[in-house]
Parts: sequence; structure tokens; C-alpha cells
Amino acid sequence: MQDKTKYLLDESEMPKAWYNIQADLKVPVPPVLHPGTLKPIGPDDLAPLFPREIILQEVSTEREIEIPGPVQEIYKLWRPAPLYRAHRLEKALGTLAKIFYKYEGVSPAGSHKPNTAVPQAFYNAAEGVKRLTTETGAGQWGTSLSFAGQIFNLEILVFQVRVSYDQKPYRRAVMETYGARCLPSPSNETEYGRKVLAERPDHPGSLGIAISEAVELAVQRDDTKYALGSVLNHVLMHQTIVGLEVIKQLEMADVYPDVIVGCTGGGSNFGGIAFPFIGQGLRGGKMPRIVAVEPAACPSLTRGKYAYDFGDTGHMTPLTKMHTLGSSFTPPGFHAGGLRYHGMAPLVSHVKELNLIEAVAYNQVECFAAGVLFARAEGIVPAPEANHAIKGAIEEALRCKREGRSETIVFNLCGHGHFDMTSYQKYFAGELTDESYDEAELAMALSGLPSVS
Amino acid sequence: MQDKTKYLLDESEMPKAWYNIQADLKVPVPPVLHPGTLKPIGPDDLAPLFPREIILQEVSTEREIEIPGPVQEIYKLWRPAPLYRAHRLEKALGTLAKIFYKYEGVSPAGSHKPNTAVPQAFYNAAEGVKRLTTETGAGQWGTSLSFAGQIFNLEILVFQVRVSYDQKPYRRAVMETYGARCLPSPSNETEYGRKVLAERPDHPGSLGIAISEAVELAVQRDDTKYALGSVLNHVLMHQTIVGLEVIKQLEMADVYPDVIVGCTGGGSNFGGIAFPFIGQGLRGGKMPRIVAVEPAACPSLTRGKYAYDFGDTGHMTPLTKMHTLGSSFTPPGFHAGGLRYHGMAPLVSHVKELNLIEAVAYNQVECFAAGVLFARAEGIVPAPEANHAIKGAIEEALRCKREGRSETIVFNLCGHGHFDMTSYQKYFAGELTDESYDEAELAMALSGLPSVS
Repeated sequence: MQDKTKYLLDESEMPKAWYNIQADLKVPVPPVLHPGTLKPIGPDDLAPLFPREIILQEVSTEREIEIPGPVQEIYKLWRPAPLYRAHRLEKALGTLAKIFYKYEGVSPAGSHKPNTAVPQAFYNAAEGVKRLTTETGAGQWGTSLSFAGQIFNLEILVFQVRVSYDQKPYRRAVMETYGARCLPSPSNETEYGRKVLAERPDHPGSLGIAISEAVELAVQRDDTKYALGSVLNHVLMHQTIVGLEVIKQLEMADVYPDVIVGCTGGGSNFGGIAFPFIGQGLRGGKMPRIVAVEPAACPSLTRGKYAYDFGDTGHMTPLTKMHTLGSSFTPPGFHAGGLRYHGMAPLVSHVKELNLIEAVAYNQVECFAAGVLFARAEGIVPAPEANHAIKGAIEEALRCKREGRSETIVFNLCGHGHFDMTSYQKYFAGELTDESYDEAELAMALSGLPSVS
Repeated sequence: MQDKTKYLLDESEMPKAWYNIQADLKVPVPPVLHPGTLKPIGPDDLAPLFPREIILQEVSTEREIEIPGPVQEIYKLWRPAPLYRAHRLEKALGTLAKIFYKYEGVSPAGSHKPNTAVPQAFYNAAEGVKRLTTETGAGQWGTSLSFAGQIFNLEILVFQVRVSYDQKPYRRAVMETYGARCLPSPSNETEYGRKVLAERPDHPGSLGIAISEAVELAVQRDDTKYALGSVLNHVLMHQTIVGLEVIKQLEMADVYPDVIVGCTGGGSNFGGIAFPFIGQGLRGGKMPRIVAVEPAACPSLTRGKYAYDFGDTGHMTPLTKMHTLGSSFTPPGFHAGGLRYHGMAPLVSHVKELNLIEAVAYNQVECFAAGVLFARAEGIVPAPEANHAIKGAIEEALRCKREGRSETIVFNLCGHGHFDMTSYQKYFAGELTDESYDEAELAMALSGLPSVS
């Protein structure tokens, strides 16, 4: 084994196609349904929201989809992303396990999100779209789409969940640096926003509400479309460049992983690292164990129901079959804002149902403790979302220690925490507690799922 | 020419020795003087502040000083740092020039500062030191020493200029994540701090005051020493790994630079990129033009006097010959906190006197405009300090455009601006103005320089 701190690929070795797991699924993912007819939707139903190429990718069963040249050129601003061997974390844990992490925080926006923001902006611009709307919680996605929009001369309008808008002004400043406009949601710019505000003028907002606002504006104007940062098939496919690079980098290190770990909110960074490995297994090759780590306060994979549900609170989106806590479920206000979503990507839900992946949930305080241990060993201060993946990887490494095994563990460090330092301040001040949801509210949200036979 | 977006070196190609420009100076840099006797100081005079190895490096005339193995291992967490070709910035400017930038923001602390923090912590730990004190303004240096101290098990105490301590709580949270203690300066923990507070309880602090406090504590305890993040010879030498890597990377790109640009506060990132190129010239080889860019509101190189002066406000440090605005000069509160220092590194001042470098000063609003243009083209949001280097490089590129030349311009992008987004907010809100100093205050500060024959 060639023992390095980091494994770098030259630009020329960057994957030139994304991997589409739908090509290898013997049982296809359940279709997306029209909320009125409950019939599978066709490309025309999605046309008001997405450009044609994105819609085709959403349903494609081609195994490889070429990354357009202009997207490759922008990817090169930060890709290929480094794979690190966590030598110092291993020592700190006293484990025999070899721990590797893929670092996606090297992107301009500081997370994996530009991997899909850039192609989404590209395809929209190529089809003549002038403006994109979107939602953002903590701001990782809004920042990424703002960056991508600037590159392809698209006007970007971001609805940011109001509580984050107020608490994290730095993220907004980054979006503005990239030339985007950012509004607190619920806002007065949409009918749905005005309705929510009329009922509760001080509403703190939610991702589900922000999605409804962004979708409402997109369908109203021909020159405007909508972009989503997670959940959908094409988004997860764009993220597979992460796992495709990891496969090459582990070959450089002359190891094959025993366990892959990723955190899951909507499922995009997890799908990005996991799907290329699952694909090897689906095609008859060997496959590592794959562990999805989610927040205990918003546990769609471990406590949700696998059912058809809306993607938003205002019920403007189609229905997708997924692990869901119910579209009316409001996750408590924990600090990993990127994991505060009631549903899970249909493709991630599907491979969970096929028993190709495992899922586990951790509380936020133990995740922050894992993140601080990681920062002190490896230097990088992780995003609160990424702390869940770190916690999952550390637990696997400690299991190896107990069992006397020297397994190879790989996790996705999906972003840095530079814009989340108030969360760390609270952690150090002892003010961070484990948020929990109300069981009655969860039961009510689950009972309100749309009935689809 | 091999035309890439970024030029990466493998870990195995990382320089294994720093470059010491003192070996090549035919006219040696003027000696450091004892403030009482006005005689050159010896190693024993510095022993209360620094470990022996650092003191030897400060006066060494060896051309190459080996980077200790444990320091190389830590460097590999982020080094070699990438060199980028700014293709999109070139297009935005419509210039024929080729623009390259070295990106030091990939370090865990987000700037070039860990290049010296890590070896300083290593040498102190190796000589049995238990605790380091230091000062920080905006927080780049305090963060870096906190990171390095954690690695070598040193207790770190950071005196942060109070106005920054209050305005930039995120930086403090990062220092605490690395396990350091951070106090606002002036503080009640030192005699000098108490004296300042007695005169003015709401004193906003300054780097000069914070240095005095850190030095005072260091000299009181045998197990405690002091670390400085810029100005001194050994600090600039540790930073030469930047320029040494750039030389190798430009060879990969098959170009030789016409102009090197860096921003100057204390002089460390500038010396880091410039000295290896100046060394080539001093040894009879070719040498590019080298441009130091400083803030117009704190213009030590362009408006200061080349004279012996104190490094701190409390007059506890030795006297060094440098371009200085006077140790009693208080720079106005502009946003590039890392450039708010009354003096300049003696080695940078010396090469300026030898006409080996040029110096130019820009105002902060034009520097922010340059930084936003850069962010929109290249994706990275730069630190306010780095915006000065960007402004300098853009001016060179526009000169090339006017003159129809296709020169190669290389600048040091010394850090990202993730913890400086309030400055960008103010810029977009139109609230940022060009700060200027009081000419009478500057004259008074210069008239108060210590008299050294």
C-alpha cells in the first residue's frame, strides 16, 4: 500500500461521465405520480419546472451520462476532490481500522452541492432559461446555485428559510457576492408565502414552505425554472462523481473499502459516494457495507414510512415514493440544517428497501463531539451535517478496535463548517442539547400521508 | 504550454527545505538592537521569548534549512497548495496576460499562516515549552497557532484585539474548536493591559497592545514562550515553501513569470512567494518584477520611514530597522485586519531599499471590487487582505491589455474570506468607505521614533 496523507487525481483523470444507478436496478424505482390523477407523470408534466435534458436524466436508464465539456471545465475549479487518509484520527481512536475521507469542502461553496448546481445551471442556460428559483435552509444549496448561476449568466432567486436567513447572515452575503438575490421565506413575493404569513406573521419558515414558494414562481414565468439541490434522481446522479473519484483514489491507495459512510438529509451526498459502489455490487462485483447516518431528530430512513408523499408543505410537487415523516412534519431546530427534511431521495429509499444499505441515527451533541475530535486530529472544521458521517465512521472504527479488525472505512466529508461556527460556540458553551420531535406530531404527519393504492 | 486549470504537486514533490534569503544577501539585513543599550542583541536576549532553534533560524545564513519530518507530515494535511490559472478572470478582463494564483486558503485555518505556526509549535514543543502566547487581529494567525498547538500538545493563549474579538465571534469559535483560549485585548491578565484599561476602559485594542500583553506573559514563566505570525526573519523563511512550490508549478505549466504580486501587512505571505524568486536573481539568474500591494490606509512601504522602531505599542520588543509609520500610529479601522500593522518585516524593507521590489497602495473599496470580480470569475471568495493582491494583479493585467502584452502574472491568494463576510455585506450595502489616516497623527508618530545613530 502506497501510504500517503492525501490521494490526488490529475484533472485529466476526472471522470467524464456520471453514473446512473437506474441502469443497474433490476427492480426499478417506483414512478413519480401526478398528485391529481395519481397516474405516473410524463416529461410534459415536469416541463414547467425543469429543462428537457434534466427531465430526460431523471428517468434515464443509460448507465453513463456524459458530463458536458463546459461543466467539466467548471468542475476543474475544485475537482477532482482529495481523498485523505485520516492517520491522526486513527491514532486518536487507537483503532486498527484504516479511515479515509473524501473532502468535498474544497468547492467554492464549501460543500458537494456545486456538483449538481453547475450542470443544472448549464442545462437551463443551454435551453434559454433566464432565471432559476430555489429554496435553501442553512444556505449550502443556495450558495452553490448562486455560484453556478453566475457562471452561466442566470439570474438566481433563493428563498431562504427565515430562521436561517436571520441567524446566518454570512451565507446570504456569499450568495450576494455571487450576484444572487436572497429572500426570507415565507415571503410576500408569492401567493403561498402571503397565505402562510397571514396565518402567522412571525412564521420561522421551513424547507417545505420555501420549496412551495420557489415552485410557484417558476411555473408562472416561461423564462423561469426551478432547481432542487437534493432528493431527485438527476441530482444524485450528478453527485456520483464523488464516488467515481473515490474508486480511483482507493485504487491508488491499493485498498478496497469494507464500509462506506455518508450522512443523509435529502440523500445527495450519500448517493454520490455510495451509488458507484452499489453499482459494482448490482453488476455482480463485490460491494462494501454502506451505512447512511441521519439525525435522530429527523429520522426518515429509520423511523419514517416508505410511502408516496409530497416533496413540499404546500403540496405543489408531484408524489414520490420515499421514506417520509410526512410532509406536514416540522423537524425540530437542530443545527444540521441540511438534514432537516421530512423525506428521503426515492433512489436512496429504494436501495434501503432492497437491503443494499443500512441506516443509523445519532443525536446532535454526540455528532458535535465527533466533529471536534476530528477537527483537532485532522485540522478541518466540519459542517454540522458532516459531523453525522464522522460519528458514523468513528463508531465503525471503534467496532473494529473492539473486534481487533483492520477494516477500511471511507466516509464523505461533505462540507466545512466555516459558516456554522455559532453552532460550535453553543456546543462549547454547553448550550447544545439533543432536540427531539414530538411523537404525536410524527404520528399525525404520517397519518396524513396521501392515500395511493 | 500544458494548459490546465490547476497545477498540483504530489506530496512527494513538496519542498523538504525552506529557503533563507539571508544566505544570498550581499548587504546583510541591519541587526536587531536592544532597546536599552542600542547594541545588537544576541541569542540570550531572545531566549525568554523564543526556543533556541527559532533564534538560530532568525540569524542563520544557511541557504536551505531542512523542514523537520513531523512538520512535513502536518504540512501534508493541505500542502502542496494548488496553483491555479485564472482562465475566467483573464476572459472577464479581456487581457492577453496569463494570470496564475497560488491558493493558500486550502489550509485548515484558511490562510498561509499555518506554514509558520506548525514549525513554531514543533520547535517549542521539542524544547519542552508547555504554553505559547500570541496576539491576533482579525484572527487568521490566532486560528493557525491554535491549530498547530493542538497538534503538538501546547496550551495556546491568544490575545485578540478587542474590536475583532467582539465583531468576529466565529474566528474565536474556531480557535476554541482547536482547544485554545482566546482573550480580548487589552485584558486584565497583564500589567500592561490593566494600565491601558485604567486609562481607557473601553479601549478597542490594537495589534501593538496585544503583542505587548503576549510578550509580558511569555517572559514571566519558564514554561511559556511567545510566537509571532509575521515580520520576523524565521517567519518569512517558513513561508518560502509557498514560492518554492510556485517555482515547481510554473515549470509544470512551462512558463516563467514576468510579475509576482503579493499583499503586505507584516510581510509574511509576500516574502513567502517573493523571496525564492528574488533569490534566483541574487544568485545571478533572471528575476521577475515583484510588486508589494499595501492598504492606502496603512502604507508602511510607500509612506513610512525606513528606521529603527519597536514592534509593539508598549515598547517591550527589541528595535528592528524597517519601514514604519511609528509604533504609536493607530491605523484606521479598515477591513483587512491582517494588514493593519505599523511596521514591515525587516527583510521585506531591506529588499525594498535594495530596489529588488516595488510597492503600491490601494484603497479598500477598489480592493473589494476586485475581490468580487474575482469571486464571480473563479469561485473563491477571498479574504479582504488577499483582495489587495488581486487588485494589484488586475492592474498589471489591465496594463498588459493597454500595452498589448501577454505577460505572465502570478499572485498569492493568501486566504479565503469565509470569516469576513460582514465586510462584504457592508460593501454591497454601500457602507464601505475608504478609510484614511490623519496626516498629523502620522507625522507625530514618525517624529516619535527612537533615535538610533
